Amino acid sequence: MTIREIDSQEQPTPDGHLQFVEVGDYTFETGGYLPNVKLAFETWGTLNADASNAVLLLHALTGDTHVARGESAEPGWWDQLVGPGGIVDTDHYFVVAPNMIGSCYGSTGPASIAPDGRPWGSRFPFTTIRDSVNLELRLAEKLGITKFYAVLGGSMGGARALEWAVTAPEKVNHCVVVAACAKSTAEQIAFAQAQTAAIRLDPQYRSGDYYDAASSPSAGLGIARRIAHVTYRSEMELEARFSRQNQHEENPFSGETLAHTRGRYAVESYLDHQANKLVDRFDANSYVVLTEALMSHDVGRSRGGVEAALNSADDVHFVVAAVNSDRLYWPAQSDEIVNHVSHGDGVFIIDSPIGHDGFLTDIHQLGPVLNEQVFSASKAPQGN
Amino acid sequence: MTIREIDSQEQPTPDGHLQFVEVGDYTFETGGYLPNVKLAFETWGTLNADASNAVLLLHALTGDTHVARGESAEPGWWDQLVGPGGIVDTDHYFVVAPNMIGSCYGSTGPASIAPDGRPWGSRFPFTTIRDSVNLELRLAEKLGITKFYAVLGGSMGGARALEWAVTAPEKVNHCVVVAACAKSTAEQIAFAQAQTAAIRLDPQYRSGDYYDAASSPSAGLGIARRIAHVTYRSEMELEARFSRQNQHEENPFSGETLAHTRGRYAVESYLDHQANKLVDRFDANSYVVLTEALMSHDVGRSRGGVEAALNSADDVHFVVAAVNSDRLYWPAQSDEIVNHVSHGDGVFIIDSPIGHDGFLTDIHQLGPVLNEQVFSASKAPQGN
Repeated sequence: MTIREIDSQEQPTPDGHLQFVEVGDYTFETGGYLPNVKLAFETWGTLNADASNAVLLLHALTGDTHVARGESAEPGWWDQLVGPGGIVDTDHYFVVAPNMIGSCYGSTGPASIAPDGRPWGSRFPFTTIRDSVNLELRLAEKLGITKFYAVLGGSMGGARALEWAVTAPEKVNHCVVVAACAKSTAEQIAFAQAQTAAIRLDPQYRSGDYYDAASSPSAGLGIARRIAHVTYRSEMELEARFSRQNQHEENPFSGETLAHTRGRYAVESYLDHQANKLVDRFDANSYVVLTEALMSHDVGRSRGGVEAALNSADDVHFVVAAVNSDRLYWPAQSDEIVNHVSHGDGVFIIDSPIGHDGFLTDIHQLGPVLNEQVFSASKAPQGN
Repeated sequence: MTIREIDSQEQPTPDGHLQFVEVGDYTFETGGYLPNVKLAFETWGTLNADASNAVLLLHALTGDTHVARGESAEPGWWDQLVGPGGIVDTDHYFVVAPNMIGSCYGSTGPASIAPDGRPWGSRFPFTTIRDSVNLELRLAEKLGITKFYAVLGGSMGGARALEWAVTAPEKVNHCVVVAACAKSTAEQIAFAQAQTAAIRLDPQYRSGDYYDAASSPSAGLGIARRIAHVTYRSEMELEARFSRQNQHEENPFSGETLAHTRGRYAVESYLDHQANKLVDRFDANSYVVLTEALMSHDVGRSRGGVEAALNSADDVHFVVAAVNSDRLYWPAQSDEIVNHVSHGDGVFIIDSPIGHDGFLTDIHQLGPVLNEQVFSASKAPQGN
């Protein structure tokens, strides 16, 4: 993404460029505290006169604000849905995509500088999905949006969208939840635990205070990503792509002893590549903070359970979708959502063999449903 | 298990007590070399005059030789199948259970002392399933067994059993393969990679030479076990047992910042417990060696593929079983085995909600099939 600091509203910010807003001090659910929280976000399109055409788009765990290309050179992660003339038509809607608190794509995160001039590091608060919504509510207020026409997200972005609908149902008209769940499951917590433990085990992690060191905990973060990535893909897809093949000329039987580095299987090389890509673009502390936030996800917490919480969002219109081969956010978890909301037409199944990541690669399949149930001309806000 | 070193055959060894045999020098498939390899094993029952009643039982990744209680006080891991009057009736069969090369339950492993007086450590060879069979063939010869009436194993033990049938089909009458596959899949390799990487990341691992240090790589081994254990259980079982519950009075929302230790979810405590149990009983280097061996598993390697390899074992009678909720060794992988063997009656499904570990907890379900197809009186060897 292209970064552009905006100090005044004199010139409109181009679509798909990073902007920042200060949303004040904040005390987190766990008791942690941050002064002067800054949220980064991108926008596309123009807010209409009665602010009725705003759409909130929420990214996944390691995602960023760059949902759509806009006027930048870089592709967005939901270009299939968002753009001029698209399903979420930025010629008609004002799309806002905030970076989640704790992330490393512009909003205040562990790498941000604290008032004492040092990065927050280990002093950064544990964060919940609910905290992120509370802060994004402030962002909406700053932008003059009292109610979003629609809130959409996939994976952790879906958890954020659902939490939005329950925390502030009066501010959400349509809520689109893709490949997510009402509350993180035991298995999701279990895989997350191993990931954060791997990062913390890395001696370069230094308990989270590694920003002034020569090296960062890339090995630990890489292991976390490997674990996560396997859960993002289906067994079938991994087998079809890699089976037991060697990586090119490498020979997995070439290491004589434990002291030797043997050649790799192709799937190992693939996961090394996925790990290296993430390490190059993501901060280990942010990975821990956001993974912990995802573990915390439960729209029913302190609200009498999932059913009561979802019932309370009885004016929100839901579209819930799942990937049929997803083995991290099983389609049955999407069923649990639609079973308890007042307005929702069953679970739309994205048909993809690759697993959870279908919420990115195959999101175009959701286009007709979104068009019909949310963004069609007859249902669109008229204030533009 | 009770350890008893046997120097002579004057007194028969009690059932279910550890014995040792030296099987000579060995060059591994990867080129590594060990002098004077020692294999540990336990036996139950008595070998008959024509040595036709021998049964080989092969343990899983972190398993040991103690398949059945025998005359020891400790329960065995397949007590449901093996014992006097049992399905594998030790009043009629002579059961042999070797510890796999590289393990830490008696056979030569990384913690064993090399000729220079130091543990092998990082000098220990990478090992394959095929290496383990080659060494166990020597054990059989030492014991005077030219052909096993049956070879049985589950999980990695199933891989070992299948490799036995293909490496030495003339030495195997019946082969029983439970919750295993013909070749390790991309996903199995992927999860294994993350596990070995976590161990190697642990600063206490010291590249495998930690035996003289004050501490061992328990954190890394614990993470490996956590990852593995999740794959051993079904999502459904984890959810039913733990869901998002807190661990007793612990509060997962009690940590203010990354520097704090928060309370745990119940599933985290459960996995901590599983990790701690393994760390107390298993060696990290052995875990790496055996995990690498399992990654190497492919009965079709250098044999023209799985189909040709299994076809070559055309005199062996197979019983293949899978756990219906297993998501590490999917039942379809068992189908691949029976589809290519000459004698095999389809896949017997063990009905268990818990996942892969059903090969231990619910193995009794296989009893009637084993009785009918392998161990019934009419089919049993007559030389006793």
